[in-house]
Amino acid sequence: ERIGLDEAVFCAGKGPAQISAILSLAAERGRGLLLTRLDADGLAQLPPDQARALDYCVMSRTAFFGPLRPVTSRGRVAIVAAGTSDAVVAREAERTLRHAGIEASLILDVGVAGLWRLLERIDEILRFPVVIAVAGMDAAIASVLGGLLRGTIICVPTSVGYGAAEAGRTALNAMLSSCAPGLLTCNIDSGYGAACAAIRILNSFPDAQQDPSRGS
Amino acid sequence: ERIGLDEAVFCAGKGPAQISAILSLAAERGRGLLLTRLDADGLAQLPPDQARALDYCVMSRTAFFGPLRPVTSRGRVAIVAAGTSDAVVAREAERTLRHAGIEASLILDVGVAGLWRLLERIDEILRFPVVIAVAGMDAAIASVLGGLLRGTIICVPTSVGYGAAEAGRTALNAMLSSCAPGLLTCNIDSGYGAACAAIRILNSFPDAQQDPSRGS
Amino acid sequence: ERIGLDEAVFCAGKGPAQISAILSLAAERGRGLLLTRLDADGLAQLPPDQARALDYCVMSRTAFFGPLRPVTSRGRVAIVAAGTSDAVVAREAERTLRHAGIEASLILDVGVAGLWRLLERIDEILRFPVVIAVAGMDAAIASVLGGLLRGTIICVPTSVGYGAAEAGRTALNAMLSSCAPGLLTCNIDSGYGAACAAIRILNSFPDAQQDPSRGS
Amino acid sequence: ERIGLDEAVFCAGKGPAQISAILSLAAERGRGLLLTRLDADGLAQLPPDQARALDYCVMSRTAFFGPLRPVTSRGRVAIVAAGTSDAVVAREAERTLRHAGIEASLILDVGVAGLWRLLERIDEILRFPVVIAVAGMDAAIASVLGGLLRGTIICVPTSVGYGAAEAGRTALNAMLSSCAPGLLTCNIDSGYGAACAAIRILNSFPDAQQDPSRGS
Amino acid sequence: ERIGLDEAVFCAGKGPAQISAILSLAAERGRGLLLTRLDADGLAQLPPDQARALDYCVMSRTAFFGPLRPVTSRGRVAIVAAGTSDAVVAREAERTLRHAGIEASLILDVGVAGLWRLLERIDEILRFPVVIAVAGMDAAIASVLGGLLRGTIICVPTSVGYGAAEAGRTALNAMLSSCAPGLLTCNIDSGYGAACAAIRILNSFPDAQQDPSRGS
Amino acid sequence: ERIGLDEAVFCAGKGPAQISAILSLAAERGRGLLLTRLDADGLAQLPPDQARALDYCVMSRTAFFGPLRPVTSRGRVAIVAAGTSDAVVAREAERTLRHAGIEASLILDVGVAGLWRLLERIDEILRFPVVIAVAGMDAAIASVLGGLLRGTIICVPTSVGYGAAEAGRTALNAMLSSCAPGLLTCNIDSGYGAACAAIRILNSFPDAQQDPSRGS
Amino acid sequence: ERIGLDEAVFCAGKGPAQISAILSLAAERGRGLLLTRLDADGLAQLPPDQARALDYCVMSRTAFFGPLRPVTSRGRVAIVAAGTSDAVVAREAERTLRHAGIEASLILDVGVAGLWRLLERIDEILRFPVVIAVAGMDAAIASVLGGLLRGTIICVPTSVGYGAAEAGRTALNAMLSSCAPGLLTCNIDSGYGAACAAIRILNSFPDAQQDPSRGS
Amino acid sequence: ERIGLDEAVFCAGKGPAQISAILSLAAERGRGLLLTRLDADGLAQLPPDQARALDYCVMSRTAFFGPLRPVTSRGRVAIVAAGTSDAVVAREAERTLRHAGIEASLILDVGVAGLWRLLERIDEILRFPVVIAVAGMDAAIASVLGGLLRGTIICVPTSVGYGAAEAGRTALNAMLSSCAPGLLTCNIDSGYGAACAAIRILNSFPDAQQDPSRGS
Ligand SMILES: Nc1ncnc2c1ncn2[C@@H]1O[C@H](COP(=O)(O)O)[C@@H](O)[C@H]1O
Ligand SMILES: Nc1ncnc2c1ncn2[C@@H]1O[C@H](COP(=O)(O)O)[C@@H](O)[C@H]1O
Ligand SMILES: Nc1ncnc2c1ncn2[C@@H]1O[C@H](COP(=O)(O)O)[C@@H](O)[C@H]1O
Ligand SMILES: Nc1ncnc2c1ncn2[C@@H]1O[C@H](COP(=O)(O)O)[C@@H](O)[C@H]1O
Ligand SMILES: [Mg+2]
Ligand SMILES: [Mg+2]
Ligand SMILES: [Mg+2]
Ligand SMILES: [Mg+2]
Ligand SMILES: [Mg+2]
Ligand SMILES: [Mg+2]
Ligand SMILES: [Mg+2]
Ligand SMILES: [Mg+2]
Repeated sequence: ERIGLDEAVFCAGKGPAQISAILSLAAERGRGLLLTRLDADGLAQLPPDQARALDYCVMSRTAFFGPLRPVTSRGRVAIVAAGTSDAVVAREAERTLRHAGIEASLILDVGVAGLWRLLERIDEILRFPVVIAVAGMDAAIASVLGGLLRGTIICVPTSVGYGAAEAGRTALNAMLSSCAPGLLTCNIDSGYGAACAAIRILNSFPDAQQDPSRGS
Repeated sequence: ERIGLDEAVFCAGKGPAQISAILSLAAERGRGLLLTRLDADGLAQLPPDQARALDYCVMSRTAFFGPLRPVTSRGRVAIVAAGTSDAVVAREAERTLRHAGIEASLILDVGVAGLWRLLERIDEILRFPVVIAVAGMDAAIASVLGGLLRGTIICVPTSVGYGAAEAGRTALNAMLSSCAPGLLTCNIDSGYGAACAAIRILNSFPDAQQDPSRGS
Repeated sequence: ERIGLDEAVFCAGKGPAQISAILSLAAERGRGLLLTRLDADGLAQLPPDQARALDYCVMSRTAFFGPLRPVTSRGRVAIVAAGTSDAVVAREAERTLRHAGIEASLILDVGVAGLWRLLERIDEILRFPVVIAVAGMDAAIASVLGGLLRGTIICVPTSVGYGAAEAGRTALNAMLSSCAPGLLTCNIDSGYGAACAAIRILNSFPDAQQDPSRGS
Repeated sequence: ERIGLDEAVFCAGKGPAQISAILSLAAERGRGLLLTRLDADGLAQLPPDQARALDYCVMSRTAFFGPLRPVTSRGRVAIVAAGTSDAVVAREAERTLRHAGIEASLILDVGVAGLWRLLERIDEILRFPVVIAVAGMDAAIASVLGGLLRGTIICVPTSVGYGAAEAGRTALNAMLSSCAPGLLTCNIDSGYGAACAAIRILNSFPDAQQDPSRGS
Repeated sequence: ERIGLDEAVFCAGKGPAQISAILSLAAERGRGLLLTRLDADGLAQLPPDQARALDYCVMSRTAFFGPLRPVTSRGRVAIVAAGTSDAVVAREAERTLRHAGIEASLILDVGVAGLWRLLERIDEILRFPVVIAVAGMDAAIASVLGGLLRGTIICVPTSVGYGAAEAGRTALNAMLSSCAPGLLTCNIDSGYGAACAAIRILNSFPDAQQDPSRGS
Repeated sequence: ERIGLDEAVFCAGKGPAQISAILSLAAERGRGLLLTRLDADGLAQLPPDQARALDYCVMSRTAFFGPLRPVTSRGRVAIVAAGTSDAVVAREAERTLRHAGIEASLILDVGVAGLWRLLERIDEILRFPVVIAVAGMDAAIASVLGGLLRGTIICVPTSVGYGAAEAGRTALNAMLSSCAPGLLTCNIDSGYGAACAAIRILNSFPDAQQDPSRGS
Repeated sequence: ERIGLDEAVFCAGKGPAQISAILSLAAERGRGLLLTRLDADGLAQLPPDQARALDYCVMSRTAFFGPLRPVTSRGRVAIVAAGTSDAVVAREAERTLRHAGIEASLILDVGVAGLWRLLERIDEILRFPVVIAVAGMDAAIASVLGGLLRGTIICVPTSVGYGAAEAGRTALNAMLSSCAPGLLTCNIDSGYGAACAAIRILNSFPDAQQDPSRGS
Repeated sequence: ERIGLDEAVFCAGKGPAQISAILSLAAERGRGLLLTRLDADGLAQLPPDQARALDYCVMSRTAFFGPLRPVTSRGRVAIVAAGTSDAVVAREAERTLRHAGIEASLILDVGVAGLWRLLERIDEILRFPVVIAVAGMDAAIASVLGGLLRGTIICVPTSVGYGAAEAGRTALNAMLSSCAPGLLTCNIDSGYGAACAAIRILNSFPDAQQDPSRGS
């Protein structure tokens, strides 16, 4: 937290007792927490009162615990996702941003296999200084956006796909070696990491956090 | 040749003596030959009269030897290449097709980092029943074409790029796992292979080899 | 669908609620759908009336939903599979073609470990302009067919095998680097992709879709 | 250039004739150019008058051609490099930024094997909103910076090292899976890519381009 | 045991009957045993009296069976772990050392994302001649320790993390190619192997096994 | 030599001084030697009298030094190679066998892309109890032979090919995971290793070394 | 079976209905069958009378169905396994050989971590013309045997181990690149493949199948 | 140097001007230096007086510059190398140790393909508390030593070999996953790293640095 990023609990691989203890400690200290990779099973195994205290999102497998920070930034970050299955990762990014007080806009299902769907929404996307592009398999949407946008593009490869998709490695490599210059890349499936990067960028330019045309 | 594909000599890794002997044998038998991967050095080391007898193309590193088949098919195959360096592979495909009597159209430097360049020429591309798409690095152009064309798309990944481009492996995997369905893929840098595949497809539909609107 | 390929729903990783919603929407719009990678468990979890409405094939894990297009093309595509376990992928290709109105012929269990079984049927295979070759492990059948056929060969590597078969990567690489020129390759286990590629090829040559010698 | 990034010529793999032609064309159009990956040999093979016209930097293997944009941004970007050999990549980033009118500060040889060297300069680094971290092998400096800085961190893995360094793949993966959240990563050895990403970020926040405390 | 290392039973992949037989045999011979990778399920399936006879540690999944050797060495080995999930592997090392009569000190949760936590404890760590460093993902802590300590550093990469962490391969490679010289590395997740290596080192210098300042 | 295999000198990576010293030592002891991977350059750098004393084969890059063992086994081993470039490795096997007194038969250029060439010679091949199959890229010939022969098949993958051939890894994996059971495999390009394996097999059955139908 | 190897059914990935149908067909034809990779669960799901008719071995997961060939070869093949977990693969080889009428000798638990255990039994091993060496992880036993035996050595890498053992890939590569010449290698975990290779070798030398010193 | 390890200059990739400048600086400061990876060409390009001032070892490609520390430790470290080509790496370790005042014993050419050569010298090896094992390809000697020695074993994999040796990756993995417990591993070809690790271990036990039975 010293560096302006909230503490987050990565729940994959943690048992219910471990998570419950972390929640109790945070409650004692009056601290809010973000939980990621908490699946429905994991939620069901928590003590009922703790489970009820969580603001849980089944799609992104994230939860907010304790007092939630108000929204202090709007209109700065768009999250663009290529395919249906990429939406899970897109929502993890959205929720991590929301926990930090940043409201992001989601633009889903605009993969390049239907290029016109993306082009129909490109003017809308162009208005955001920071765009998070989420895509698996060929990740072609990242390069297409890179050729159309002047602003910051944070890429998140996803593990969607099979065979030559290599569990996200192909999307990752395609984003890293994109023919469009200046793309930035996060770890596979790391909606959380992309959101933290966006927070760092907004932290870098504190005067620019608010979009006046959108109100607070 | 039994299967309708001319014999081709892959010169990489063959010494001048070996290539010279192959040419002599072909000359004796009165047979035409296609040579691929013959670089300028290799050409210079051949016996001068044999070198002079070659119709050599420095860019594609290919040569025609002996009698050249007339053009019997036009307007059936377009070759689309993303970047400057991909043109080498594109020309290998073009020359292989020409050796088989097929005239192909080259459409170069239309990578998706400048999407408008590709979109400006898309109507032209749409007229060809068979399109060979040549691209390295992210190979995003293959997916974009896949979303815009109804017809056959033969993809050739190239080893252009560095680092995460992994000598063509990333482009190959991106083409194989493209979000656009029905793309077909050849080996890395194999302009020759893509041309042979196009020949097989035209062989499959002999009545369809000629584009009447283009004349012979 | 703009490019002549029907919409298909890739069910792996989608929950029953998500699939059910897609079916309802299609029903409303009166549209037919192809479902792939729907396993028996997934089928059982659908609302009974929707499950009953599906024309389900347990082997290929595919389903047809809604009005089925009549067969409009016959005798154009053969699907040749090497081993017993490759038949699953072969049938995914067959069903995807059938959904598009194309009747394909299946020739199973002709791997090169028993070369005579393949040679006994080679004249039959030679009659098809487009052959889909499905094989795992060494994928040797693709190269053998490549040396015997003049026409189009679409290769589908399968993830059959263990150890050095590397979940289909070995078959994929062998097909891509085959000593027989002009083979075309799809993603591992992608019977769907191979069928879409065959549809693209038939779309490229509309006059050639029907085999007169076979009637309609 | 439509997206605010100058055209750059990647010279690796281009012959002197090709580069010379590109320079002539740019001269005709009165356009400035950035050349990257132009080694001393390549420079020596250019026509003498063109070579003389270049502002060449031997360490970064970059050259400026034609009119150079004035510096319009200062104090916004620091480039931090871990080892002696990483400086090559760091300088490619510095030169790319300078070509775009952005003056960056270089902080070299602060690898974590001598942690105190980095800690001595950390207050200086903290003043920059955007930090480019260049490191090979274990890339540990990226994680250390990630734990100390609030602002934006763009990581460039380098191919320095041998064996398990795997030509930069280890540094790349370590940066992507850093225990410090929100790091952003570029392709291996891509000082150019990191600089373009920094330009995109400054483009995103145009009011924030100038550091008033440093003058123009 | 001829080489001074106790026999240990690797329980992963062994059924309850197999483990039970090994325990019976050891009981007959009056020999103590260390069991590793025995998860709670495996424990529950053992005959109740054998299960009761085990000194089981749920976190490290290790068990002591039979007479336990007294502690004969103190203050010689510290085990430093970066993240919460690395503690599992750290404890496997601790238990293996304890079984050999060596008491080790655990220093947990000092990853470099919070560098100050490590620096606060560095004087304590410096007192140990042998330090075992346990870390996953980027494994940056190993390089930081390597730059601060004169003594022996045994590194254990862990499979913690996802995507580019590559199941521990990234941490392994980072440790092997650390910019700090003289680090030594064990197999991924091998707390057992690191402990055996520490035992070998203490065996090499028998007079140095005891830290007099700590008493016995 | 204790195990019935002659000493061989692997010359790749050895300087002329080192090789010369080994030859002098062998000459002193009156011992014959096999040299492998000695290219023409390496030969030219040896002291002239030593170079002259070698029975050198430019194709296989092998040399015999000193007294050569007479042929004591005939008609037991055939070496079958798929492509032109595989012949180099095939000859390394032949020469290694000859050095051990075993005369092998070479059957070249019978790759499966021209299946009839292989089938024309299959009866000849069937007469040999041990067949060494040399092939690169898809290595399909190994599986075809595996389906036609009852006897022993030793496979040697070669590094011939590019891209997906992966420097012999694809051929190696295809041979290891062949659908024909009971194939045995050596290291990539290791004609020497395959010959040694054949020698071991003939050593295992000493009464069977001679083919009476062929005379000595 | 044309090539002297019995038909075997690879049960992994086959459902009970599929296996049952194969058994019925074999029963009709009066043919014996070998089943491999049939785990206890798979056995339990077969029709009870078919399950009872199987001669099942739980350790190797193999079953004999129908009339079993008498033993016609003894004392020709030894199977040497390094570790406890390698025994599973060793027994698959033993059972496959037995099904073909060949009695093999098993020598288990002689890994090089306890070199003396191997050396104690080396004279016994030396008596067999064909030795199958089964080992995972480092596979060092293969090289040690290679340095001690004159005869044929068939290596089977196993997927035993974790981390850097890479699911058998390390053992495979170590066997292929052994410093002992003439080792032959099969696919990972393929006890079946090793046995088929041994059968091929014995088929190659029919007069040598019987060890007279051991009787029939 | 703060951590007790001398500064070393890694010369691969550094030009003569760069190396010369480093030497001049060290001369000014009166500091001794170790140079590694300085090949004969690099040496020849240095200013003659600087080249003459170096104590150069052509085999290990190392040089000592300036005052050399006296030998203060003897009989503590043995370096054991498997093959002829591994000796290069073994000598890099020996020279690095010598530069630090530690005299090591070299035991060369004792690979397991000739197990008796190693066993003949095992009693000698057993006398050293720290053994550095250098081996490529299968690296089997590391496991054999691991089973015979109680003391510390530092493994250095080498890039010797081809094909499946994978430039040292196989040896590295085999050492990491050895069936002998407690082996410690360095980067591929890193004789320097192994020596630094040995220095760290001797630093950890300062009273144990001298072998009294060997004198000073
Ligand atoms: N979805 C996520 N992906 C990557 N890192 C995460 C994620 N969620 C949390 N983290 C990181 O994991 C840290 C907590 O790890 P742990 O101590 O294991 O719970 C947080 O401070 C974040 O840096
Ligand atoms: N078996 C399959 N293999 C590969 N792609 C498929 C398959 N089935 C459907 N698809 C593709 O996945 C798309 C639908 O993905 P989704 O939106 O996730 O259902 C379809 O339009 C197809 O392009
Ligand atoms: N354990 C095994 N490992 C590898 N191949 C096997 C194994 N068991 C059977 N096979 C092979 O698989 C073939 C049968 O495959 P299938 O038709 O799928 O049952 C047999 O003829 C064998 O060649
Ligand atoms: N042969 C070597 N292998 C690995 N690292 C080395 C080697 N020689 C020197 N080094 C390391 O490289 C550092 C110097 O790197 P540089 O500043 O690039 O010369 C030294 O302090 C050592 O830590
Ligand atoms: Mg998509
Ligand atoms: Mg491009
Ligand atoms: Mg098969
Ligand atoms: Mg460094
Ligand atoms: Mg951590
Ligand atoms: Mg071939
Ligand atoms: Mg073992
Ligand atoms: Mg060796």
